[in-house]
Amino acid sequence: MIKPNTHYSELKSSYLFYNIAQKTKAYTDIHPDAHLLRLGIGDVTLPLCDTVIKALHSAVDDQAQKETFQGYMPECGADFFKQAVQSYYKRRSVSLSEDEIFVSSGASDELGDILDLFDDDNTVLIIEPAYPAYVDANIIAGHRIIHLPSDISDDFAPYPDESIDADIIYLCSPNNPTGATFTKEKLAQWVKYANERSAVIIFDAAYEAFIEDEEIPHSIFEIDGSRTCAIEISSLSKTAGFTGTRCGYTVIPMELERAGMKFNSMWVRSRTTKTNGVSYILQRGAAAVFTDEGIAQIKKNIEIYKSNAKVIMSALEKCGIRYCGGKNAPYIWLECPDDLESWELFSLLLEKAQIVGTPGAGFGKCGERYFRLSMFGDVSDTAEAARRIEALFKAE
Amino acid sequence: MIKPNTHYSELKSSYLFYNIAQKTKAYTDIHPDAHLLRLGIGDVTLPLCDTVIKALHSAVDDQAQKETFQGYMPECGADFFKQAVQSYYKRRSVSLSEDEIFVSSGASDELGDILDLFDDDNTVLIIEPAYPAYVDANIIAGHRIIHLPSDISDDFAPYPDESIDADIIYLCSPNNPTGATFTKEKLAQWVKYANERSAVIIFDAAYEAFIEDEEIPHSIFEIDGSRTCAIEISSLSKTAGFTGTRCGYTVIPMELERAGMKFNSMWVRSRTTKTNGVSYILQRGAAAVFTDEGIAQIKKNIEIYKSNAKVIMSALEKCGIRYCGGKNAPYIWLECPDDLESWELFSLLLEKAQIVGTPGAGFGKCGERYFRLSMFGDVSDTAEAARRIEALFKAE
Repeated sequence: MIKPNTHYSELKSSYLFYNIAQKTKAYTDIHPDAHLLRLGIGDVTLPLCDTVIKALHSAVDDQAQKETFQGYMPECGADFFKQAVQSYYKRRSVSLSEDEIFVSSGASDELGDILDLFDDDNTVLIIEPAYPAYVDANIIAGHRIIHLPSDISDDFAPYPDESIDADIIYLCSPNNPTGATFTKEKLAQWVKYANERSAVIIFDAAYEAFIEDEEIPHSIFEIDGSRTCAIEISSLSKTAGFTGTRCGYTVIPMELERAGMKFNSMWVRSRTTKTNGVSYILQRGAAAVFTDEGIAQIKKNIEIYKSNAKVIMSALEKCGIRYCGGKNAPYIWLECPDDLESWELFSLLLEKAQIVGTPGAGFGKCGERYFRLSMFGDVSDTAEAARRIEALFKAE
Repeated sequence: MIKPNTHYSELKSSYLFYNIAQKTKAYTDIHPDAHLLRLGIGDVTLPLCDTVIKALHSAVDDQAQKETFQGYMPECGADFFKQAVQSYYKRRSVSLSEDEIFVSSGASDELGDILDLFDDDNTVLIIEPAYPAYVDANIIAGHRIIHLPSDISDDFAPYPDESIDADIIYLCSPNNPTGATFTKEKLAQWVKYANERSAVIIFDAAYEAFIEDEEIPHSIFEIDGSRTCAIEISSLSKTAGFTGTRCGYTVIPMELERAGMKFNSMWVRSRTTKTNGVSYILQRGAAAVFTDEGIAQIKKNIEIYKSNAKVIMSALEKCGIRYCGGKNAPYIWLECPDDLESWELFSLLLEKAQIVGTPGAGFGKCGERYFRLSMFGDVSDTAEAARRIEALFKAE
């Protein structure tokens, strides 16, 4: 008699974004003509930039000719892809060897798969509010989970709590959902904490391209001591609009070792056993992002998303609604007005303003009175959403 | 102190195909001008067919325009992809609902990930010789493994052994590495065995497109009773030359349930938590394979690979070397001549004939005296390999 992984039954009955999709569908079933302003799930809306499109077409052409056809790719990433990522890190003076860089199908895939490196008997520390997949993937893995609440008093980027013992620590900066960022000094404290406990930090850098303040680190590897305690997981989904195209990268330093086992070589073994690498076509497209031309083009898109943020922030300010994020991150995290709970605000915005946002409660208990708006929406939809928010909440 | 997954240290020091690559590299380092005839790793050499190339280009164009741009895909697969797979199964009178079909990045990725559905405390039955990743993925998962040897006396496709109790059963037909196929009657016995024990069959159908005998099943779901005991994992790698392009599919029937848990809904939860789906571009390319035009075109490529098989089989026959496979499968599995062990034959063929093959010992102990040749090589290289095999082994 086969034994299923019963941890699945410990999961809440369905996933946050799925819930939102269901509730939104229920609304559009009744109001089929409604034009929804979608600031909910963090999906991008601008097309891929020219340089990437050209690289993708050229790679497809390679697959059409015997002479240029690419079969199995190296499981950990094509050399050209690793070199592109290496050069991207070098721009911020982070030196990585090619062997420390792994291609992935994106951060969400990797955040789940990476747990394969660890024993079930580990305690995970998740700073909340948090991306719900951190919690769910660790429930499935059977890990003990400590939820560390954060709030406005620590700018949603807390210091480590010395009284807590954790083995695996999730840090996400710029943060989803709060838009908070960790300063160098705060990250240095977390690195010290992790090294002292022989813990491992899983650093989710999926939003690093949105940082505009010079002093905020884009990578955990800008911090001294991080090479003995951190894995960095990143993605092109938000950097270059790859949510539906899929490609990302993971960095595991050679020095990262616990109980005599090197996580880098374990990951090599995991990838060579359990994958056949990532599509040649996608790696070509992804590598093009890191060229000078590619970086200039994605910056333009990021500026457009940032102009969305400014429009929403301005509306919130006029309504006297407190918020954080929106500057170094593509999310605005606002306090629900009028003493509403977050799912109440969700329904109100959907019904009265046709705005789809994300209730803070979906990111953990301490998000109950907060709400997330994404800046990845259509420009005119976002401007209209700002107007409707003002109409709803601005004091006369 | 974080605990690594110590099962990694139970793995053999490196992976079969990696070993072959290393030994081959050592040879070419000394003989840089050698033209190797690569019949080793089962990598395809023919480019993607026109219909697929057109669909890929068109999907890349979609990603270049705001109106057609695709962000996050449904995690379990795009509707158009699921419908394409559904129609492909329908050609063989297998009815599947769209919800039973999942997109994947390919069979190797899925064979590893699928173990997430099961508790660590399970016993796995692997019929050997076998694809080495079955064993390694289950070592990493901490499962008990029973190795069931097969040999020429049972056509490398044994009946279940009633005295063995297993929870998870791997069946691969057509088989890698032996090229053996399971008849309907044999598969029916395995289905009965699995249902009686509440076990689950993981059916690897990656080579189904090579079957030419009408009576051999392409899918486990052609067998009565399989919907309560089987998961099918398939791939376009060999069917349509997607080894470096990546896309596959997995079928989990709604009826498959153990200890009150439905594996289909668990897999939905796994995919929605741990992935963001498979690239829109790749799904478009993959769906094109299953059109009438696509199927006609991939058949032509398969015919070319089969003509490779005929050339090699003819040479082996002239040398009096016994073999199986080559007819309904892209692999030929031969008995090592001259009492050689399989790694000895590997070195002999590499050094005397510049042929790269795969030693049978890499697929389990009972493969020690066997050797695998792949039919995916270049046509003229394969013909040359056949001549050199004759020159080496044909009795005067």
